[in-house]
Amino acid sequence: MTGPSAPSMPDPLNTATLTITCPDRQGIVAAVSQFLFAHGANIIHSDQHSTDPVGGTFFMRMEFHLDGLDLAREPFERAFAQVVAEPFAMDWTLGYRAQPKRMAILVSRYDHCFLDLLWRKRRGELHVEIPVIISNHDDLRRDAEMFGIPFHVVPVTRETKAEAEAEQVRLMHAAGADFAVLARYMQILSGDFLTGFGRPVINIHHSFLPAFIGANPYRAAFNRGVKLIGATSHYVTEELDAGPIIAQDVIPVTHRETPDSLMRMGRDVERQVLARAVKAHVDDRVLVYGNKTVVF
Amino acid sequence: MTGPSAPSMPDPLNTATLTITCPDRQGIVAAVSQFLFAHGANIIHSDQHSTDPVGGTFFMRMEFHLDGLDLAREPFERAFAQVVAEPFAMDWTLGYRAQPKRMAILVSRYDHCFLDLLWRKRRGELHVEIPVIISNHDDLRRDAEMFGIPFHVVPVTRETKAEAEAEQVRLMHAAGADFAVLARYMQILSGDFLTGFGRPVINIHHSFLPAFIGANPYRAAFNRGVKLIGATSHYVTEELDAGPIIAQDVIPVTHRETPDSLMRMGRDVERQVLARAVKAHVDDRVLVYGNKTVVF
Amino acid sequence: MTGPSAPSMPDPLNTATLTITCPDRQGIVAAVSQFLFAHGANIIHSDQHSTDPVGGTFFMRMEFHLDGLDLAREPFERAFAQVVAEPFAMDWTLGYRAQPKRMAILVSRYDHCFLDLLWRKRRGELHVEIPVIISNHDDLRRDAEMFGIPFHVVPVTRETKAEAEAEQVRLMHAAGADFAVLARYMQILSGDFLTGFGRPVINIHHSFLPAFIGANPYRAAFNRGVKLIGATSHYVTEELDAGPIIAQDVIPVTHRETPDSLMRMGRDVERQVLARAVKAHVDDRVLVYGNKTVVF
Amino acid sequence: MTGPSAPSMPDPLNTATLTITCPDRQGIVAAVSQFLFAHGANIIHSDQHSTDPVGGTFFMRMEFHLDGLDLAREPFERAFAQVVAEPFAMDWTLGYRAQPKRMAILVSRYDHCFLDLLWRKRRGELHVEIPVIISNHDDLRRDAEMFGIPFHVVPVTRETKAEAEAEQVRLMHAAGADFAVLARYMQILSGDFLTGFGRPVINIHHSFLPAFIGANPYRAAFNRGVKLIGATSHYVTEELDAGPIIAQDVIPVTHRETPDSLMRMGRDVERQVLARAVKAHVDDRVLVYGNKTVVF
Repeated sequence: MTGPSAPSMPDPLNTATLTITCPDRQGIVAAVSQFLFAHGANIIHSDQHSTDPVGGTFFMRMEFHLDGLDLAREPFERAFAQVVAEPFAMDWTLGYRAQPKRMAILVSRYDHCFLDLLWRKRRGELHVEIPVIISNHDDLRRDAEMFGIPFHVVPVTRETKAEAEAEQVRLMHAAGADFAVLARYMQILSGDFLTGFGRPVINIHHSFLPAFIGANPYRAAFNRGVKLIGATSHYVTEELDAGPIIAQDVIPVTHRETPDSLMRMGRDVERQVLARAVKAHVDDRVLVYGNKTVVF
Repeated sequence: MTGPSAPSMPDPLNTATLTITCPDRQGIVAAVSQFLFAHGANIIHSDQHSTDPVGGTFFMRMEFHLDGLDLAREPFERAFAQVVAEPFAMDWTLGYRAQPKRMAILVSRYDHCFLDLLWRKRRGELHVEIPVIISNHDDLRRDAEMFGIPFHVVPVTRETKAEAEAEQVRLMHAAGADFAVLARYMQILSGDFLTGFGRPVINIHHSFLPAFIGANPYRAAFNRGVKLIGATSHYVTEELDAGPIIAQDVIPVTHRETPDSLMRMGRDVERQVLARAVKAHVDDRVLVYGNKTVVF
Repeated sequence: MTGPSAPSMPDPLNTATLTITCPDRQGIVAAVSQFLFAHGANIIHSDQHSTDPVGGTFFMRMEFHLDGLDLAREPFERAFAQVVAEPFAMDWTLGYRAQPKRMAILVSRYDHCFLDLLWRKRRGELHVEIPVIISNHDDLRRDAEMFGIPFHVVPVTRETKAEAEAEQVRLMHAAGADFAVLARYMQILSGDFLTGFGRPVINIHHSFLPAFIGANPYRAAFNRGVKLIGATSHYVTEELDAGPIIAQDVIPVTHRETPDSLMRMGRDVERQVLARAVKAHVDDRVLVYGNKTVVF
Repeated sequence: MTGPSAPSMPDPLNTATLTITCPDRQGIVAAVSQFLFAHGANIIHSDQHSTDPVGGTFFMRMEFHLDGLDLAREPFERAFAQVVAEPFAMDWTLGYRAQPKRMAILVSRYDHCFLDLLWRKRRGELHVEIPVIISNHDDLRRDAEMFGIPFHVVPVTRETKAEAEAEQVRLMHAAGADFAVLARYMQILSGDFLTGFGRPVINIHHSFLPAFIGANPYRAAFNRGVKLIGATSHYVTEELDAGPIIAQDVIPVTHRETPDSLMRMGRDVERQVLARAVKAHVDDRVLVYGNKTVVF
């Protein structure tokens, strides 16, 4: 990272990330690393995990340079599928750094998580495109426009919810979104939304789940007298606040806090935890299995 | 703390701690501090809290030297009751440093919280006497004896539970215990035990309450895939794991952990959190109101 | 905080904060609280600290409602000076919530601390006015203007430094600034600047001081192989990075980080720590003595 | 961890850990994993790190079962050396779980780190043998004997230091110690000691290094007014407190603390950090390069 910028210096954008989930058995690492080596892929990072060496599930993430690759993308992927993935019954993905993921944002009125994501994108901390922002209120339009991102208001009422969700899904598909982030979007999504969109949706819940599921967690935390408050970022599933957890954090609080000051303090945790989860997702570090995650 | 040890140096053991809980209204601080000043009590620490200046509850803790006091203990307490406490409808306690609290310990087989309390006592970190240890197993007898503390085995079965609890209460009363600590005591206490003992009982629960109430919280945390595990120390009430929380903490965990390794990692949090709660109780820093605590 | 909004509900802006530093001796709390009570001031919060009850320094912060006050501000302050402050040789300040402090910001090119302060101000988390922003570069003009705050570029070179500092001080005085914040301002301030401005200046240093004083602390941290990186917010004095510390925090790092990724991760700590320090200053919670602080 | 206890269940003690440090280049992972696979070693955990894929250093740790190995230890090691290690110019170690490391402890009078290590050993948290304890005082003899470990007093004075160190080294060699831990041993070790012992020595320093090198760090922290105190565990080198850092942690403190209370609070951090470092060393997770560590 500090060496001279020699002509052979690899292009940091010319990398790919391979993720693998498969039944554990001997020889997986050997097969994958042998395949990559044989085709000239230089491994930068590699992480593995196994729930149990005997009868468990195996997870792997490998980041490698494409510079020396002896095949183009398609034949490379086809070869990997045949030679490695199929024999080991792998679920696998291959993401190219040169093609950043496209992130839709859904937001209501709170600006802290929303602005935090936009700034991190601007600073280069999040390697994403943000092609569309959808809100049920007009409040944050000016902020979105300041960042040059299309901002759509789709109001939601009890009566129009199905229609509104269909419109949201249409907008996200039109924008080519690869995944969506609920940056304190204050509506519960239906199963139809999730099925219709068909891609990962990341939420930030303002409590340490599974404590304080549902509405008003800061009020609930205040009433219970807890000495820590937290935030949880998770993939959205049909069951409320029960999807696979990606990131969590807490901060200490005392008897001096009110529900209002808990809400204010909690904002700092919420945006940090959401940003950490989104970055992990964007960098292909999160592998879901059952209702849990491996975060490399 | 760094000055020369002059003859006028006050005796660190000759101090008292006053705690007050009362309806909030103007003039409380003035009345208390005026009373202490008038009688020659030199305030070392003072903490106050109000849930709401209008119609709320007021809490106060004052630590002061007794060296210059113009009254003996009894007349001082009588005067305080008449002049200050009654007019303001105060609940109050007065603890003297020269009379350390007497702590009973109930424990089963896990040694980590138990040993941590004994060592802290030995090092002078906990200003207590430990007149009695009660266990439902014989495993930790040698450790207790190493510290010279009477160790009683009171086995508990479903059939003998009422009897066993009566014996435990009898042993604690006989030892003059002011409060009891459940240092991973693996039995649920009945309301009869709590009423019979009639003094505070502090428990350590191995989760971040209110998440994972009840048995096997590490297994439950593992199944839910949380990214933090925690511990909670609270006063015991009849409702399981629902009493006023004194202290909580968490540590980060990853997908690499198993229920067993969570249990191992959790031990470090459990003993820290329990020690913090016990120290706060021993130093008269915890004021209970409703199902919550003020911890000064 | 939860009661009905009755007519007698005090105005949250109609409060004042009194801070006191004086030689410790008996009767201070009694005198202050008696005075406030006698004049109808209802205490909301009160904190005290003593470095040593015998021969030490005493610190106090009292927040109270002005609604029931029987005197106007000036006679109240005059009375307090005569009756309480002078007999006890107090240094004291009295801040009125209705008159928020005026904060100047100095910034260079990094935007993270800068934007964090502006957003917190916009959300109502920081009770300040921001009348002026000064930078040695033009990069952040658009952000400043988005918030409607005057933005002045004062370039600084080795030759023009004295002149530039004089211009900065002039701009801050003209804007009526009560204090200044260096939100990653990459120039060392001279004693002339500090004397000329004559008011508190808060800096954020991107290390856990006193480790890694001076330039390039992330590089230094990388070279030393530390397992935590941190940030320190402190009042600026003539000696570089040696002023009274207000707030510090750290985050864990591993061997996987590079100087660049440490810098990226550190940004989150820097802005949190600076915001915490600025909020404490704005709310009159920081009392300086010698080269240290009491932060209530 | 959840499977049925089938006859094929591998013996958890029949595992080995391979660590590798070598110049980075393509094909290392492939070569190592291919070799292990070919010889029937089932990989349980694998971690890799590279300081730079171009011209950097590569680090690897692989934990694997020996059950299915087709070679005995010696021929296996010989084959690995020839086929893999030599071609890639590897520094490597191979540790067998069935042969726990032998840890010498040096201690003075403080008991907290010392007792913490003994308890963790007793609870099975540290996979070590402790064949010898050496102290310059007699204070902790009874504790050592309670755990059944030989306890030697080697007094150290300025005059007898060289002689005393020679005796310490002799005792450690006689006990077959693989490494030593300074559990708050209050003497500075000479280069002769380090050379004479010739094996890793782990120290715990009671500050966040590189802040507060040398004696009395809590007093120095108090004087500087820091808002965090910490502890650092590192390998001992000839330069005081400057060796490769293995683990660090901090806790928040306020103006209320004194040097004495900082020392008390610090004890909890010291023992946690030392235990974490020792466990990492014992489990072959620490690879040293230059003055830094990779901790897998």
